Amino acid sequence: MTPPSPGPDFTARLERARAEMAAGAVDALVVSVGSDLPYLLGYEAVANERLTMAVVLPDTATLFVPRLEAPRVLRRGDLFDVVAWDETEDPLDLVAVRITGAGLIATGAQTWSRFLLGLQERVPGARFVDATAIMRRLRVVKDAFELALLEQAAAAADRVADGLAGERFSGRTERELARLIAAETVAAGHEVSSFAIVAAGPNAASPHHEPGDRIIAAGDAVVADFGGRIGGYGSDITRTFHVGEPAPEFVAVYAVLSAAQEAAVAAAEPGVVAEDVDRAAREIIDDAGHGAHFIHRTGHGIGLDIHEDPYLVAGNREPLERGMAFSVEPGIYVPERFGMRIEDIVTVDDGGPRRLNNAGRELKVVA
Amino acid sequence: MTPPSPGPDFTARLERARAEMAAGAVDALVVSVGSDLPYLLGYEAVANERLTMAVVLPDTATLFVPRLEAPRVLRRGDLFDVVAWDETEDPLDLVAVRITGAGLIATGAQTWSRFLLGLQERVPGARFVDATAIMRRLRVVKDAFELALLEQAAAAADRVADGLAGERFSGRTERELARLIAAETVAAGHEVSSFAIVAAGPNAASPHHEPGDRIIAAGDAVVADFGGRIGGYGSDITRTFHVGEPAPEFVAVYAVLSAAQEAAVAAAEPGVVAEDVDRAAREIIDDAGHGAHFIHRTGHGIGLDIHEDPYLVAGNREPLERGMAFSVEPGIYVPERFGMRIEDIVTVDDGGPRRLNNAGRELKVVA
Repeated sequence: MTPPSPGPDFTARLERARAEMAAGAVDALVVSVGSDLPYLLGYEAVANERLTMAVVLPDTATLFVPRLEAPRVLRRGDLFDVVAWDETEDPLDLVAVRITGAGLIATGAQTWSRFLLGLQERVPGARFVDATAIMRRLRVVKDAFELALLEQAAAAADRVADGLAGERFSGRTERELARLIAAETVAAGHEVSSFAIVAAGPNAASPHHEPGDRIIAAGDAVVADFGGRIGGYGSDITRTFHVGEPAPEFVAVYAVLSAAQEAAVAAAEPGVVAEDVDRAAREIIDDAGHGAHFIHRTGHGIGLDIHEDPYLVAGNREPLERGMAFSVEPGIYVPERFGMRIEDIVTVDDGGPRRLNNAGRELKVVA
Repeated sequence: MTPPSPGPDFTARLERARAEMAAGAVDALVVSVGSDLPYLLGYEAVANERLTMAVVLPDTATLFVPRLEAPRVLRRGDLFDVVAWDETEDPLDLVAVRITGAGLIATGAQTWSRFLLGLQERVPGARFVDATAIMRRLRVVKDAFELALLEQAAAAADRVADGLAGERFSGRTERELARLIAAETVAAGHEVSSFAIVAAGPNAASPHHEPGDRIIAAGDAVVADFGGRIGGYGSDITRTFHVGEPAPEFVAVYAVLSAAQEAAVAAAEPGVVAEDVDRAAREIIDDAGHGAHFIHRTGHGIGLDIHEDPYLVAGNREPLERGMAFSVEPGIYVPERFGMRIEDIVTVDDGGPRRLNNAGRELKVVA
């Protein structure tokens, strides 16, 4: 794993943000918790009641941070100023002074409502809009630095997935297996495990199942969906295992799912609209009579957020572009019986779609 | 550790929320990510772009969840209805229909701005306010169930803190020690490690230091501040260690800090206002000439959030009540030289302040 270089060009990102602001007649861009702030200024807000907020104006950028967190901030030349506020100050008053006079203010998607309401009260003449319109255009196409990190993260997730096939599943609880996966996710090189879903038997019919006390047993299909972060960028992979030999019905449904995932990946060519990738998977599953059992979209973009634009969902007519990265993860969920899902991260390259995950996708029979 | 019983009385909580709504002329209470939702309905929203939102009206409560997460929801009799929305629906439209006609709508503090802006657009006649005014009154005084979990979590954190004194510090990086603490936090009985700050030598002058590659060495003071969750309720403890014998100056400053922490805990009697607890610690540190080195408030409430009301800070005239729980954590930070902090969770009992943390608070000399 060679570290990607060079690092992010924050100056260029801020220039692009300002160009998007100008195009949308936005006077101020205000971002707080979530990944817009690290994307723009390389600093991640601690998510709590002490306000951290960056104000980007056409000619200045200012990061407001609690005094006790100011030492955490890595200054980046004159990219932005830092204002450290004291425990007895009201940081919203300080921010409001900075944006007074702005007519249109875009606020980061994940900014807490209490802070947005506080700004609306303090700057009553302004109109506030969701900054996603600006930030998505910056973030949806990844640069080489970002793609390298996504690729590293995917390779680490692959090692965990391949290693799982050698584990004993039966006799362990879902929770135990989830903890093992979380530990392996870190051991494989991620800085942190972001999540680990383990869903066995009928529980696997719940796509976002919370791993519990169910003891995995022979005859269970087990869906394992997990990921971590490297340099802030996420991995997200799903593989389906079967404890002992699967019944012919299960094998047949898995073949449908496999074909659907293959078709969706193959469809992800530059210029194809996002919903057509979803449709490619859905048609195959529909045709096999399982349309009602595919209860979620086919995928989501991935980057600093595990879920971000572009979303591969019916109704999204956004064309795919080179440098986009997203999951392709159809699933089939038969209530009270079983579930299955196959997920890879895919990027759109000059040559077409390219999977970043390469762990075996066949149904893995485990003990 | 006996499990606390009985569990939360969600019906009573919802009744109290409605009484607060009525008192504030609030027509609808809308909560999403964060701990207001689990406090009221026993369900925690997955924090992502798929909206999970509860709408509490005077006579109904409805939880809107993504279809694929509906199986996660534990129904609680007729406490609330569930509306599962499909991937191609706009959940804000569904919520808006439910609150149309409401004049005053209180939204959960941590609700994402993008969703608040979406509701403001869809219900243009309404006024939106921060729901903290309602929720803080419910949550600031803990019931026996909550106090039992806070006590369990504190006892688990104590075991980790006491165990640290037997560890070798020198030669390890801050990051390695932080990872060890996170693992021990789980091993001690927490379901999850929430955070682990390890700050050595001059880094300890940064209260929220991000553990890094600094190798801990003889002569370093090391601040370890960590916590986890049990049943949703947090622990949060800080102890200060010294690698090898400390210099007399350090010992003397630590004695000031100890006295300040003792005084603040002792001050936390029912009826005392929150800022007076802060003042009790601050006066002692001021008198010793270190006032400029105590750069944060003395403490924060703790419950389902690691930081919540009441805040022990100058300007907060709120009287302490029986059943409140909060940290008492003065610190002294000398830039570029050293830092120190002592933190316990304290509750206000009939008999006065009671520490939930009992790990040794003396300066611990480690190898």
